[in-house]
Amino acid sequence: MKHRKEHDLLGEMAIPVDAYYGIHAARAAENFHVSNIPIHKELIVALALVKQAAARTNMQIGRLPQDVGDAVCRAAMEVANGYYHDQFIVGAFQGGAGTSTNMNMNEVLANRAIELLGGWPGDYGLVHPLEHVNLSQSTNDVYPTALRVAAIRLLLPLSEACAVLQGALQEKEAEFAGIVKVGRTQLQEAIPITLGQEFAAYAEAVARDRWRLYKVEERLRQINLGGTAVGTGLGADKRFIYRVVEQLRVLTGIGLARNENLIDGTQNADVFVEVSGLVKAAAVTLLKISGDLILLSSGPRAGFGEITLPQLQAGSSIMPGKINPVLPEMVTQVAYQVMAQDLAVSMAAQAGQLELNAFLPLVAANLLPAMETLAKAIRLLVEKCIRGIRANAEKCREYLQNSTGIFTLLATRIGYERASELARQTLLTERSARDIILEAGILTEEELEKLLTMEKATKTGYTGE
Amino acid sequence: MKHRKEHDLLGEMAIPVDAYYGIHAARAAENFHVSNIPIHKELIVALALVKQAAARTNMQIGRLPQDVGDAVCRAAMEVANGYYHDQFIVGAFQGGAGTSTNMNMNEVLANRAIELLGGWPGDYGLVHPLEHVNLSQSTNDVYPTALRVAAIRLLLPLSEACAVLQGALQEKEAEFAGIVKVGRTQLQEAIPITLGQEFAAYAEAVARDRWRLYKVEERLRQINLGGTAVGTGLGADKRFIYRVVEQLRVLTGIGLARNENLIDGTQNADVFVEVSGLVKAAAVTLLKISGDLILLSSGPRAGFGEITLPQLQAGSSIMPGKINPVLPEMVTQVAYQVMAQDLAVSMAAQAGQLELNAFLPLVAANLLPAMETLAKAIRLLVEKCIRGIRANAEKCREYLQNSTGIFTLLATRIGYERASELARQTLLTERSARDIILEAGILTEEELEKLLTMEKATKTGYTGE
Amino acid sequence: MKHRKEHDLLGEMAIPVDAYYGIHAARAAENFHVSNIPIHKELIVALALVKQAAARTNMQIGRLPQDVGDAVCRAAMEVANGYYHDQFIVGAFQGGAGTSTNMNMNEVLANRAIELLGGWPGDYGLVHPLEHVNLSQSTNDVYPTALRVAAIRLLLPLSEACAVLQGALQEKEAEFAGIVKVGRTQLQEAIPITLGQEFAAYAEAVARDRWRLYKVEERLRQINLGGTAVGTGLGADKRFIYRVVEQLRVLTGIGLARNENLIDGTQNADVFVEVSGLVKAAAVTLLKISGDLILLSSGPRAGFGEITLPQLQAGSSIMPGKINPVLPEMVTQVAYQVMAQDLAVSMAAQAGQLELNAFLPLVAANLLPAMETLAKAIRLLVEKCIRGIRANAEKCREYLQNSTGIFTLLATRIGYERASELARQTLLTERSARDIILEAGILTEEELEKLLTMEKATKTGYTGE
Amino acid sequence: MKHRKEHDLLGEMAIPVDAYYGIHAARAAENFHVSNIPIHKELIVALALVKQAAARTNMQIGRLPQDVGDAVCRAAMEVANGYYHDQFIVGAFQGGAGTSTNMNMNEVLANRAIELLGGWPGDYGLVHPLEHVNLSQSTNDVYPTALRVAAIRLLLPLSEACAVLQGALQEKEAEFAGIVKVGRTQLQEAIPITLGQEFAAYAEAVARDRWRLYKVEERLRQINLGGTAVGTGLGADKRFIYRVVEQLRVLTGIGLARNENLIDGTQNADVFVEVSGLVKAAAVTLLKISGDLILLSSGPRAGFGEITLPQLQAGSSIMPGKINPVLPEMVTQVAYQVMAQDLAVSMAAQAGQLELNAFLPLVAANLLPAMETLAKAIRLLVEKCIRGIRANAEKCREYLQNSTGIFTLLATRIGYERASELARQTLLTERSARDIILEAGILTEEELEKLLTMEKATKTGYTGE
Repeated sequence: MKHRKEHDLLGEMAIPVDAYYGIHAARAAENFHVSNIPIHKELIVALALVKQAAARTNMQIGRLPQDVGDAVCRAAMEVANGYYHDQFIVGAFQGGAGTSTNMNMNEVLANRAIELLGGWPGDYGLVHPLEHVNLSQSTNDVYPTALRVAAIRLLLPLSEACAVLQGALQEKEAEFAGIVKVGRTQLQEAIPITLGQEFAAYAEAVARDRWRLYKVEERLRQINLGGTAVGTGLGADKRFIYRVVEQLRVLTGIGLARNENLIDGTQNADVFVEVSGLVKAAAVTLLKISGDLILLSSGPRAGFGEITLPQLQAGSSIMPGKINPVLPEMVTQVAYQVMAQDLAVSMAAQAGQLELNAFLPLVAANLLPAMETLAKAIRLLVEKCIRGIRANAEKCREYLQNSTGIFTLLATRIGYERASELARQTLLTERSARDIILEAGILTEEELEKLLTMEKATKTGYTGE
Repeated sequence: MKHRKEHDLLGEMAIPVDAYYGIHAARAAENFHVSNIPIHKELIVALALVKQAAARTNMQIGRLPQDVGDAVCRAAMEVANGYYHDQFIVGAFQGGAGTSTNMNMNEVLANRAIELLGGWPGDYGLVHPLEHVNLSQSTNDVYPTALRVAAIRLLLPLSEACAVLQGALQEKEAEFAGIVKVGRTQLQEAIPITLGQEFAAYAEAVARDRWRLYKVEERLRQINLGGTAVGTGLGADKRFIYRVVEQLRVLTGIGLARNENLIDGTQNADVFVEVSGLVKAAAVTLLKISGDLILLSSGPRAGFGEITLPQLQAGSSIMPGKINPVLPEMVTQVAYQVMAQDLAVSMAAQAGQLELNAFLPLVAANLLPAMETLAKAIRLLVEKCIRGIRANAEKCREYLQNSTGIFTLLATRIGYERASELARQTLLTERSARDIILEAGILTEEELEKLLTMEKATKTGYTGE
Repeated sequence: MKHRKEHDLLGEMAIPVDAYYGIHAARAAENFHVSNIPIHKELIVALALVKQAAARTNMQIGRLPQDVGDAVCRAAMEVANGYYHDQFIVGAFQGGAGTSTNMNMNEVLANRAIELLGGWPGDYGLVHPLEHVNLSQSTNDVYPTALRVAAIRLLLPLSEACAVLQGALQEKEAEFAGIVKVGRTQLQEAIPITLGQEFAAYAEAVARDRWRLYKVEERLRQINLGGTAVGTGLGADKRFIYRVVEQLRVLTGIGLARNENLIDGTQNADVFVEVSGLVKAAAVTLLKISGDLILLSSGPRAGFGEITLPQLQAGSSIMPGKINPVLPEMVTQVAYQVMAQDLAVSMAAQAGQLELNAFLPLVAANLLPAMETLAKAIRLLVEKCIRGIRANAEKCREYLQNSTGIFTLLATRIGYERASELARQTLLTERSARDIILEAGILTEEELEKLLTMEKATKTGYTGE
Repeated sequence: MKHRKEHDLLGEMAIPVDAYYGIHAARAAENFHVSNIPIHKELIVALALVKQAAARTNMQIGRLPQDVGDAVCRAAMEVANGYYHDQFIVGAFQGGAGTSTNMNMNEVLANRAIELLGGWPGDYGLVHPLEHVNLSQSTNDVYPTALRVAAIRLLLPLSEACAVLQGALQEKEAEFAGIVKVGRTQLQEAIPITLGQEFAAYAEAVARDRWRLYKVEERLRQINLGGTAVGTGLGADKRFIYRVVEQLRVLTGIGLARNENLIDGTQNADVFVEVSGLVKAAAVTLLKISGDLILLSSGPRAGFGEITLPQLQAGSSIMPGKINPVLPEMVTQVAYQVMAQDLAVSMAAQAGQLELNAFLPLVAANLLPAMETLAKAIRLLVEKCIRGIRANAEKCREYLQNSTGIFTLLATRIGYERASELARQTLLTERSARDIILEAGILTEEELEKLLTMEKATKTGYTGE
């Protein structure tokens, strides 16, 4: 492989001759060779858009020659469209602040721009990574800005996935509206409910998640672009500071706004904790729903068996015919992962010191995949599981008939204490509740039948009257 | 000690003759004797208000005799005013759903009401804990409702504490506006900033916390009171269901509303995860600020020493004259505790099963003290630390003069690469940056002086021109 | 209330005339008024023992007058025996390092010693909190030492509780050895197992927890007593340093040893993370077991219902006769709390800076209650739940007969693919597995019966032959 | 692309004609398309070794034809050597138990073995994924076994990395033994210490981590191979059960042993919680050390500046000459990630139900990368940071001379109270401590000089005499 020489304040280094990255990225790749986890794709895209916005603004105010600026813009557009992502050789775990990611981007754009202008990678006389591409910028404003943009771009699909899930659950609510079954609290049979009501309750929780994730987007819109190193904007032309956000707004189509206090925007990461906390809340909702689906479909015969999940794959390498609730299990694991990622985000955020939070790369490495993976998991849950759930009405009915929840209905007539006594007799004798009640002479058979119309008992405020 | 006999479905038990609690609480206290942590005071107050609202409604619709209802209301008012809290003998760690807390409350109110009606504790013929006090209710609707009310009552002081902190920080912002100092990123000197700007940035983050905590209150207002056991309201009169929330609204002065889906409200705990996540976000902000205060006041001589915190107590049992940053340290610990409590809340919430989340007592045992303790810690931080912080202007100036941040200013004139080279020479030789620059013949002494007007450099968008 | 005047470097303060605590504790109580959580009792006891060991050693080497030393020792003994704990007015959340707890102890012991010598509290000329009680010590060595001693004293009951649990589970293993039932993986029926085998598996996990908690004690025995402020032992006589640990060993009956590197012992908190991690591991085991007990006892009729837990209390305020798995639920909540406390311990430990970990009070406030509460919860689980569990053999048999696990046995004869095909037919038709198999003509009825001897199938390595 | 047809109990599917994976993996890849994170390489290697051990044993006992067995063994060896990892198309997030990973492995080995026997992928008549490759096995025993083996294989490099770090720190301990400096507690200057002592204290903590990680390996050696679906070994020949572990021991070179209770080994994941807790403890140690390195190297001029870290890369895209502590920052982020991964492991472990923990894939997806990444991060920290640290002796001396720690030394002579008073005067007046002391006439200049021999003060138990 042929190489070119590049240098920095530490000396010279050989770089593959056709690499778009340069010495800063190469050093970082060596320094931080700890995992294979790359920078999240959306962060690269967002950072490329930031660079393009900066170049446009610098051209506008006459700080960047038109030809150089145009080349940088085109290079940035290419990266934003998914090209050259293999040139981002610095992984997700790196030194503080994301400097190496910014440096890598500066180099990739510079070299690609150089190429567009007819030069060879490394001809930084044509386009310089720092003096042109990074002009009027610092890692400390472009990185938090790009992270916010990337987070916004991943929030939308997540809240949309919640909407799809909500819709699918509501379809099941309608489909199962007539299936009366025993409700369970603390896994002990309680009183009647419909299977449709259960799915409706899931849908409500998901609707709240959807709303939260949708609303929180606006918190991410305050960006610190223009603030440069510590938020004072030192080194950036005032016209740049006031115009660059507008450029980025146009490029991203997102209603971004300049944080009125750029110093705050540079050092505080609380908004990521807020967003991550809501992503975690969605994960918690999914854990509840997944757990319930696993319970309700347990069996097929030696379990609750009130619903059947679609068969997606053979469940066991040794047990023929076994089908497992693999989608809820996958979602469970993704959701636990999201909870752990929320912890990582929070720890990174609290560790900020003075003018900067150096640990935003850790925020990026957790928050962005959390949002993306959760959204995908939700979509799969809907497509491959929720939509195909079938009710086992017979099983539901059977449980209901035998349940001891009947005494709660009875208590509305004869009081808690007497009903309690009859319930105790029932459990001791293992006889049916009906027999015990009739024997006690409290109700006639007819009255009892009327009282126990289970379907009525699922309507709001049934008191047996 | 004299005793009275009470019984339940398991048999008889001796209860101290003048105890307001009864057999259900006594059994639970035995069953769950694991820690000394009591039920949070605000939860008791909120639950008493719920009971009062229920009694009022039951009287209104003619389900509860006036004299019994009045006595229950008066008893509940007394408990809400702080009386008889020693009668709540079931601790924070208990069985599922908070049943034992509800039972304890039912018994305390019944026995106190009995007393008010001239009877003796235990005369449940007069007022019955379940058939009167708990009428039309279930633990599963009153407990989540009370928890929401308690959380709302603790949110307000927390967001107010944030407001006070914000104000105190802004006062310091004004006071320190003229103190120019070196800004640090990654704890390495960067470029000039004012001490006032640092406090302004803290104030911004706190302002966001305040806003979040203020806004999230409305999420807690949807209550499931009236839903009874699983949210269908079984056993509760429809009129009760539709009226009881209004009563509670009046009693609490909080704009509560009935969750349109009571089944959802009974089983889903996502809103507590949401709220807890925002309390955690506030804790994270405080960790950042506390950490900075510890750093900036480190010394007094062998540290940053740019600020001095008020002396609050002798710092050491062996080192005379040592003063430590005890308030930020206390806040740090409280904030870490809150982060851990958020985890407990999330784990409890995800563990809900089917029609109920049985682990709300764990949510209560973490969320309520988290909010209360954090609010108090913030108040103390303001009163005993922030307000008394003094700036060490001399130290700030001294650091600034010696810092290498000067090269960033210089780069605006001569480019990154050349400035970088001069910076390297400076660090190698340990000579002053000024000498190196002047020697390089780039600027005249006058030009250099002008460039290095540090105060200007803290204004938005200084480019040295 | 009458007061005496005390002073410190900040000035004077009025202290209740008969208080044993003094000005340092009083200031701290004011500064850290954030929660009602007191210092853990075992930490007070351990710290009193440390003080006594120090006083004895100082007398031995002639640094402390005999009468003063004797009085301090007697005072310390009294505190170790549980007296005057109400004089510890500084709560669990406080400034860094535990200085205020140490100060509080110094004052209580000094004032009680003064009293024993015939003086009045505050006559520090007789016995001085710092110059006598704290002689040759610093918070930074006595606090970590006391924390280790307290942790050791709480570890033993915890590992003993595990032993008791293990024993109780093994009794159930024996009792349920003959109950063959369906094993479930991913909550889907798999192949036969005995109920006894299930309890045996729990016992194994608990046995490991017991062993871990027993073994880890030795990691806590390395103490930094004698190291004073930063571990160099500055201010402490060499003879003191070399002898004081022996005194503490005698007083505590624990095989303590001086950390060979006292500086390490002063600043590093990794051992608490290690211990807390193992307490968490025990909590995780308990979560698994508790979750299983809730599942297996779900019902009573509309659930798995394979076991019945003892009835401990009425389960519901509205549903008569309902019995809930309250002990496993309590244990679940305690265990989640322990997981959260482990997080708090870890965050505190990682935040140590240079010569000290200032956040040991947070470690104490989480680790000590975690150990104590978990031990108590385990004991209650054993006494009130495990011992009384009854098997529902009939239900177990019924599930087993209907289960589809039969095809796994069959596959040992006819291969996975064919067995899989028959399993599929069975589930599609809802006919019994036996019929399908017999119809397929693979086995005679006799062969099938022999193959399906479920009890054999639970023995190691059954292949149907 | 040409395809072959495969079928399972759900029907047919087209598989690329030359793919080694088959229909089970293909379905899973579709079902679980949520992230790009692949199965950890070490898990693939370990699982291949398990398969080889099983094939060897099955040949030995005559259950597997020699030619088939040999081909499977060779295929497994190839995979263990790193071939065909691209054929593992099911990612880290998947359904429960790791079934899909096991299925994928069975298919890859079968198809490669078929090829070795002269057939074409898909000719399962030659070698069958389940009936040959998976013979006598279940996911539920091979997966936990492989996970243990993989964890052991990653533990060793981690404890070795700790050993290397310990060594490097000890070298610095020796190098910096003569550098006396101010010790700081709570970031306030305390008393003298040497820079060497600081590194020695780090080395001690790391030595404990090394020991813990080394010792815990033996906990992982108990494997449940042979237990098949639920630990009873159903379907596996007894001879297989008793011999297969020996085969795996030979192949891995690890002292594996059969868990005496295979049912326990199948369902309990506590050992992963234990191991993960210790990996987290190491992460916590690294957070402490990294935080200290960032503090001690803060500056270069406006900070503590007592040490200089090696320059590894340009620190800023805007601030020329800025060098940041990038290695400690990277380690900090990796360590926080490990803390979060520990949470994921714990949550997965506690969620096990009955005969299986379905969430081991989540354990694998967190524990294995945690160990690997931490080991690599430690190595980089040593090579690129620790080894090159230089002391700034002058700065250390300067701080020491000005520090107020002197009063602690003085207190050994004149008592805490008087020393405290002088300390107070010093801070109020901003005069030097020496002047104040001499002026007070307590010591002659000569005595003072002698007292303040700072080097002596760092030796164990200096009392100024």
